[in-house]
Amino acid sequence: MSVQQLEQFRETIRNQLDRTVDFWLKYSHDTQYGGFFTCLGRDGQVYDELKYVWLQGRQVGDLYIGVIEFNFLFCAGGAFLRKHARVSNSSGQWKCAFCLTRDGRAVKVQRTIFSECFYILALDELSRVTGDKDMQLEAEQVMAQLVHWVQVDPSGLGRPPLPGDTPTSSMAVPMMLLCLVQQLSEARGPQEALKYQSVGQWCVQQILRHVQRGGTAVLENVSAGGQELKGCQGRLQNPGHALEAGWFLLQYAAQWGQQDLRDTAITQFIKQPFHSGWDVEHGGLFSFLDVDGLCPTQLEWSMKLWWPHCEALVAFLMAYTQTRRPELLESFTQVYNYTFKHFPDEQSGEWFGYLTQDGKVALDFKGGPFKGFFHVPRCLLLCENLLDQLLQKDGTRAGPGPV
Amino acid sequence: MSVQQLEQFRETIRNQLDRTVDFWLKYSHDTQYGGFFTCLGRDGQVYDELKYVWLQGRQVGDLYIGVIEFNFLFCAGGAFLRKHARVSNSSGQWKCAFCLTRDGRAVKVQRTIFSECFYILALDELSRVTGDKDMQLEAEQVMAQLVHWVQVDPSGLGRPPLPGDTPTSSMAVPMMLLCLVQQLSEARGPQEALKYQSVGQWCVQQILRHVQRGGTAVLENVSAGGQELKGCQGRLQNPGHALEAGWFLLQYAAQWGQQDLRDTAITQFIKQPFHSGWDVEHGGLFSFLDVDGLCPTQLEWSMKLWWPHCEALVAFLMAYTQTRRPELLESFTQVYNYTFKHFPDEQSGEWFGYLTQDGKVALDFKGGPFKGFFHVPRCLLLCENLLDQLLQKDGTRAGPGPV
Repeated sequence: MSVQQLEQFRETIRNQLDRTVDFWLKYSHDTQYGGFFTCLGRDGQVYDELKYVWLQGRQVGDLYIGVIEFNFLFCAGGAFLRKHARVSNSSGQWKCAFCLTRDGRAVKVQRTIFSECFYILALDELSRVTGDKDMQLEAEQVMAQLVHWVQVDPSGLGRPPLPGDTPTSSMAVPMMLLCLVQQLSEARGPQEALKYQSVGQWCVQQILRHVQRGGTAVLENVSAGGQELKGCQGRLQNPGHALEAGWFLLQYAAQWGQQDLRDTAITQFIKQPFHSGWDVEHGGLFSFLDVDGLCPTQLEWSMKLWWPHCEALVAFLMAYTQTRRPELLESFTQVYNYTFKHFPDEQSGEWFGYLTQDGKVALDFKGGPFKGFFHVPRCLLLCENLLDQLLQKDGTRAGPGPV
Repeated sequence: MSVQQLEQFRETIRNQLDRTVDFWLKYSHDTQYGGFFTCLGRDGQVYDELKYVWLQGRQVGDLYIGVIEFNFLFCAGGAFLRKHARVSNSSGQWKCAFCLTRDGRAVKVQRTIFSECFYILALDELSRVTGDKDMQLEAEQVMAQLVHWVQVDPSGLGRPPLPGDTPTSSMAVPMMLLCLVQQLSEARGPQEALKYQSVGQWCVQQILRHVQRGGTAVLENVSAGGQELKGCQGRLQNPGHALEAGWFLLQYAAQWGQQDLRDTAITQFIKQPFHSGWDVEHGGLFSFLDVDGLCPTQLEWSMKLWWPHCEALVAFLMAYTQTRRPELLESFTQVYNYTFKHFPDEQSGEWFGYLTQDGKVALDFKGGPFKGFFHVPRCLLLCENLLDQLLQKDGTRAGPGPV
């Protein structure tokens, strides 16, 4: 792979990042009530005023990363979230809402941890920029609550225990927690990193338990004891999620100097899910697969969604940057070619999110209940940074280096 | 349309009904624990042992309709449901589970009324066959609870009220209740019919409030006051659901001799949703549409699902049988041609449930979390009965007649 090729990747990625940021900057901000509109049509029109908290939190968390000029928007979004996201129930407990009205009234509360996760992401990012210690404290308090729900007692989530509901371990939970551990400790120095060290270790161990079938597959759900579960739930594979876990583990391995973990991440969370998850007929990554080759029950299993491709780009480029193994850059190129051919919307900017199996646009909105200002800019920014690193170092330093 | 054509429809439909019944009879019964396996792969293999209560209830309700030889299975399924479906919570209230393990332990309870609806359907059908008065009483008691949740106080469903969660009226609720009113009163004589008369009237009024935009559209969700709601939820159209409501209304109109209601059902719930919901490019009915022509947020919006086609077949054939208007038989034929070309599986029997927009099989299982022994046999049996009626009467009696 030539330097020119890497330069060309970088040029396209920088350009796409600019266009993506422009799109959200132009259409997303609610100047009347604060916060962000997340349901944006192909050309940026607001087709629903509901504000999804996952995306509010992610947007606040992401807007700032490397994009200093968004200071104003970013703070406005954070203020909206802090004012409205937390909802108390009659017994004095609280949860973050999943969805708010335009003016901030809670519409729906989920019985999972994810709204809280994105709330922490937003608070912590905002506290770093503003230096607001109170906000940082709140982020840490919510994190402590989250760790309690996950490791000690989930009853506060509001899901009554049922006799047939075997405790299961979904990979999403330790992944999200690990992401928050990185968030809460990075750029805050070794003191903060040590504070969350044991939670981070727990997350890594939990993620590794999803490698099943003698190391040949990452399964999305396992039993609380780390065994394969019966039925569809147990056989479910989510290639995009495995790839995302892969680069989370790469970051962690680089931070703590764990070369074995780096190699496990590359072999089992990046290369293997990519090879089994790639659609050899039409290209692109499947959304879900059944490890026994049965038909998944998720209606969108064969659709090509934007975010698994984002995760694959980051995973392969980070793995290549750490190891300089050429086959990793080849896989990156394969994903890159599919992604940039199919997802970006040349007409109106940003990316389409949902394609049919054979690569046609199936849903043309740019933002919706689960697509916002998150995966695309995070991927583009991380890839740009990695390419910067590769281009500056190319020819001067071989071998692995921290990301 | 010739008599030969109707005979040919009837022959195909009878044949398909036999094959469908054979399939479920052969693969669905759990001889060890009772109840039915509902997750059946293309060739009938059980790919998950979870038992979804909607489908257990529907299967018990449907197995018997006109298929006397299933007495044994049918009772076994009913016994499993009665033994396991009801789950009590800590405050002494109960709900029906949404999903049970193979041996009947509750896995999940939804905060909606639908599991209870199918439980009533099963109990009532079973009580009719066995003459078990206690079972009939339980069906009526659960029905009373349901009416209370819907008309008086939904708090027992377990969804805490939230300030941004505007009360909305989903068409599914009065449709299900109307279906149960028919179930609980049909074949039990005028006395029983009178007992549920006011609930039935309420359901019809509620359903009619979903006709919006000056009569040009049926919208799936409206405000509690019967107004159009803002956003995606308010603009949502579900053509299959409107068509199903259409034939529910036709049955009701025939029972109570309401010719105006019959005409409203045909014009606004059958012809209009069919014309706006039909995919002129690829054929078949869309799953969801946005009344303003925006992109729905449901990932499967453009997929062709089996059940809207079932509902369209029944709706047009029933409307034709009641009115003998030729254009209704033409539309029936249009749906029939698409349906029987795309959905039945010639290889293994039963129907595929989920096609891509252009008619390829996207998911090949025969039973899953939402597809069971319900829409296909109900549709085929009703169509066969309607065709019997048409063929016997053809040439001897013109004009509308009760179904």
